[in-house]
Amino acid sequence: MDYTQILTQIHHDIRPLLGKGRVADYIPELGKVSPHHFGMALVTPDGQTWSVGDAAVPFSIQSISKLFACTLAFGLLGEDLWRRVGREPSGNAFNSLVQLEYEQGVPRNPFINAGALVVTDVLCSRFVQAEAAVVQFLRRVSGNMAIDYDVAVAESERQHADRNRAMAYFMKSFGRIDMPVEAVVNAYCRQCAIAMTCEDLARAALFLANGGVVPWSGERVLDPSPTKRLSALMLTCGTYDEAGDFVYRVGLPAKSGVGGGIVAVLPGECAVCVWSPALDHSGNSLAGVQALEWLTTLSGHSIF
Amino acid sequence: MDYTQILTQIHHDIRPLLGKGRVADYIPELGKVSPHHFGMALVTPDGQTWSVGDAAVPFSIQSISKLFACTLAFGLLGEDLWRRVGREPSGNAFNSLVQLEYEQGVPRNPFINAGALVVTDVLCSRFVQAEAAVVQFLRRVSGNMAIDYDVAVAESERQHADRNRAMAYFMKSFGRIDMPVEAVVNAYCRQCAIAMTCEDLARAALFLANGGVVPWSGERVLDPSPTKRLSALMLTCGTYDEAGDFVYRVGLPAKSGVGGGIVAVLPGECAVCVWSPALDHSGNSLAGVQALEWLTTLSGHSIF
Amino acid sequence: MDYTQILTQIHHDIRPLLGKGRVADYIPELGKVSPHHFGMALVTPDGQTWSVGDAAVPFSIQSISKLFACTLAFGLLGEDLWRRVGREPSGNAFNSLVQLEYEQGVPRNPFINAGALVVTDVLCSRFVQAEAAVVQFLRRVSGNMAIDYDVAVAESERQHADRNRAMAYFMKSFGRIDMPVEAVVNAYCRQCAIAMTCEDLARAALFLANGGVVPWSGERVLDPSPTKRLSALMLTCGTYDEAGDFVYRVGLPAKSGVGGGIVAVLPGECAVCVWSPALDHSGNSLAGVQALEWLTTLSGHSIF
Amino acid sequence: MDYTQILTQIHHDIRPLLGKGRVADYIPELGKVSPHHFGMALVTPDGQTWSVGDAAVPFSIQSISKLFACTLAFGLLGEDLWRRVGREPSGNAFNSLVQLEYEQGVPRNPFINAGALVVTDVLCSRFVQAEAAVVQFLRRVSGNMAIDYDVAVAESERQHADRNRAMAYFMKSFGRIDMPVEAVVNAYCRQCAIAMTCEDLARAALFLANGGVVPWSGERVLDPSPTKRLSALMLTCGTYDEAGDFVYRVGLPAKSGVGGGIVAVLPGECAVCVWSPALDHSGNSLAGVQALEWLTTLSGHSIF
Repeated sequence: MDYTQILTQIHHDIRPLLGKGRVADYIPELGKVSPHHFGMALVTPDGQTWSVGDAAVPFSIQSISKLFACTLAFGLLGEDLWRRVGREPSGNAFNSLVQLEYEQGVPRNPFINAGALVVTDVLCSRFVQAEAAVVQFLRRVSGNMAIDYDVAVAESERQHADRNRAMAYFMKSFGRIDMPVEAVVNAYCRQCAIAMTCEDLARAALFLANGGVVPWSGERVLDPSPTKRLSALMLTCGTYDEAGDFVYRVGLPAKSGVGGGIVAVLPGECAVCVWSPALDHSGNSLAGVQALEWLTTLSGHSIF
Repeated sequence: MDYTQILTQIHHDIRPLLGKGRVADYIPELGKVSPHHFGMALVTPDGQTWSVGDAAVPFSIQSISKLFACTLAFGLLGEDLWRRVGREPSGNAFNSLVQLEYEQGVPRNPFINAGALVVTDVLCSRFVQAEAAVVQFLRRVSGNMAIDYDVAVAESERQHADRNRAMAYFMKSFGRIDMPVEAVVNAYCRQCAIAMTCEDLARAALFLANGGVVPWSGERVLDPSPTKRLSALMLTCGTYDEAGDFVYRVGLPAKSGVGGGIVAVLPGECAVCVWSPALDHSGNSLAGVQALEWLTTLSGHSIF
Repeated sequence: MDYTQILTQIHHDIRPLLGKGRVADYIPELGKVSPHHFGMALVTPDGQTWSVGDAAVPFSIQSISKLFACTLAFGLLGEDLWRRVGREPSGNAFNSLVQLEYEQGVPRNPFINAGALVVTDVLCSRFVQAEAAVVQFLRRVSGNMAIDYDVAVAESERQHADRNRAMAYFMKSFGRIDMPVEAVVNAYCRQCAIAMTCEDLARAALFLANGGVVPWSGERVLDPSPTKRLSALMLTCGTYDEAGDFVYRVGLPAKSGVGGGIVAVLPGECAVCVWSPALDHSGNSLAGVQALEWLTTLSGHSIF
Repeated sequence: MDYTQILTQIHHDIRPLLGKGRVADYIPELGKVSPHHFGMALVTPDGQTWSVGDAAVPFSIQSISKLFACTLAFGLLGEDLWRRVGREPSGNAFNSLVQLEYEQGVPRNPFINAGALVVTDVLCSRFVQAEAAVVQFLRRVSGNMAIDYDVAVAESERQHADRNRAMAYFMKSFGRIDMPVEAVVNAYCRQCAIAMTCEDLARAALFLANGGVVPWSGERVLDPSPTKRLSALMLTCGTYDEAGDFVYRVGLPAKSGVGGGIVAVLPGECAVCVWSPALDHSGNSLAGVQALEWLTTLSGHSIF
């Protein structure tokens, strides 16, 4: 089967799952999105794109922004980044603050909130506006200059960020945050509120499948070895507490967000983004995980 | 032995212990105090006072303020206070945030930092300046109108309060804090920075040994039953993670602070305050705990 | 009010509470007991006894046996006992094994299961049959030579003791248990299966209210100071995770069991035992705690 | 570079690392092994073998046995296996019993001790001698009929298995272990005591790189999809608490043991085993991890 057939079949078979699960509603703006959306886009380094459903509808990328913020910080600090944040799976949800306490304020990895706040702190100490740096980077790697964060979503995030403030102050009490907490939290909230489409995100992630180079522009984002390492990190830590299960079922490095998006890459082959807002109990798009599982089954391609 | 003999003997015997342990130094102002101070004052409802050593030297009362802030809040809310904060021992130190996470943001008791922040939040929602209310209350129950907080200590506390901010934001994320976090933390830092002498503190605590009534003024602070209950709470939760050991060795309801002070009461008999700045591994005055153990041994009086 | 009036009124007022709560049923033998039982007995050092309801009906003393086993071990080892087990409240229920892991296999206190297994290990290394030593001790201090353990209950306990075995092997892996685990668990199960009445238990605990001496026989069980210290331990650790609440409401040193019994002492005054099988969420007798709260309220006597 | 060159270079470059780290000594038999051993063997589905150093010296496979026991149990139960054990990384070391307690006795994955005990329980309920079934399986997939467990090591393991007994009884208290604990622990100790060489282990793991089929015998051990899934599990859970770091540095599915062995596979390409007894702080062979990192760097092959 070619990608056209595969995506068409997934689009057809996924219908009974749409609306199952639960749309994130910790901020009102996310809760308003219909759970029946489904979009999927796949791009290859030679410039081809396949897409189905709502692949051109923008959604809130939320935690997927952590992947790109981490790329930026990794590019800036190199391996020194790992002095400030670990690269181990987090174990499980209840651990958020517990684990920070045991581990002296060093977050387990850059894809959990605590770790992403450290990454944002790194960016805040290098850029006047960290969120603008992330937006610029996304425009550059996706080729879409219209990408921006949603002001209303960002403001709503900021009003519901007390737990992130708690984590940031907690890490600051261990000397792990350099910049003022409120500045870091603001930048983080804005970065999470960036709106993009499946097509944007698949294109933006393509450098990860292409040895660190953006195919159409030729820009080298990362060297080949760091690119592989970032993929490794996505694999073990990219899908919250479900990472083991996700690797088992899907077998692709990926990063998900509570907006219902998931970005995945197959090194050397393609980048893919799927979006459906209703989440499973781990906070990953329920239909999205299933769609990716079918993709690797139907194509016979995974990293294993 | 009468109290004169007992305090004289304790004052003599305690010398080899002075300087053992470690003065709190998380803020520079506390670290400057000499570890060789030792003062002790005992007052009885009939107005007598016995004191030895540095009983008239002011020191930073720190967490002892939690006892009086809690008395104020308990007087305002009555048993409703226990909807906002528990009355169980906290288990152990590493639990601070861990326990808050398991218990949905409700602190175990009003004498740990998280619980004291909730108490301060209660006071902040009733008084324009919560710390001023605590200062006024202490002036009234001690009879010393010169009591105030130390501005430099309060400011230093505020600059080192990131962990308290973390806890306050964490509780706020569970909906447990009503007022702005920075206002609560400021009031809390000022309250901790109140300076008093052993004589002041023994007098201030005397209502707890006298059924809730301040003997010389006749003011009823609490009814007899709440007074007993507050003493019960001091017994199980008043000395950090050492409560079990303290009850075992001393057998008196007490509240300690990292400034090196400990206030204790023997219901119906007396209130006592001891001060020596060097702390044991649990954060209680090393010489102070020993002095109180000798007091109950020599007098033959404890609650058991 | 005298004790006759007080116990009569409690017996009357407690009726609406009988049957509320939940009878322990982790072994079938306990689950068979009617939740409507209520008995209470109070004894004073001068030999008087007051009792109401089912005060002469035997029940399974369960964890109350820990108090007497601990007394025996404390008598044997003195303060050295605290090298093997702590004397701090345990914090909360979920901590059983968690806390053992953090604290290198040393249980927090002798009144939680892990600590009681260490106490039984002490007795097993001194007596051929540790449970027989506890039975003999109870006969001696209660004056009832017919006291024994219930063979069927003991056997049922043994069949449901996997969690206790887990704890014992876990402590053994830290080098904290000397004797074979199965021997320790067997002795422990038998000790828990001892059957006694409220009158037996109140008499058996009277030495704790009488400075360590059994009044009618004149036998000194413990010196005065260890006696006070054991009472202190009962106060902070005797009622599971409810200790803080129990001290707050009742204000007496006490030890409870999942059979529905609670033994309490008022030093210098009396020992009391109450029994009603239905338990509150912490595993203490629901009616029993209320009866003791009324006793201290009506008599005006508590340790505070 | 071809494999001959790569292995020769690794063998040369690894020398300064030999003896660094710490040989496991929790049982005397393991502590006796020289830390200066180093062996490495790589096999491909077409039957070629490359090896250097002590690749033909037998060592104790320890936890590597979990990979093959799990393969056997997965073959028997299929996806039903995951009702009894999870497939998520365990977070971190201190969690062993903690996590079991939170998760109601269901271990996180089959490669931590608790999970391996469940796997052994599955095998014990199917085979008279579970350890013999594992030995037979290893003989079949490696082609070496002389493989067996070391009786002295097994007996020593059994004498130091109290923590495993604790975990097994703990899981049994949740109803998660069917067979008698002592039988499960015995079988588990023997399975860990199996002795094999690097060449044996690389051959034994080759079916995982070959779609589930043993190349020389044509025996299908697992279907292609379960084979990929087992590789996914090795990747996220195969190297203790270092899994994230290992994936980041090496990028191969692998399983390590405290005997100093590590087995890894590159799907479609080869299986490799490296052995050096001295361990890093996570319990993985210090030189072994480095050798595998160099292998993927020099060959340019990893799963990313």
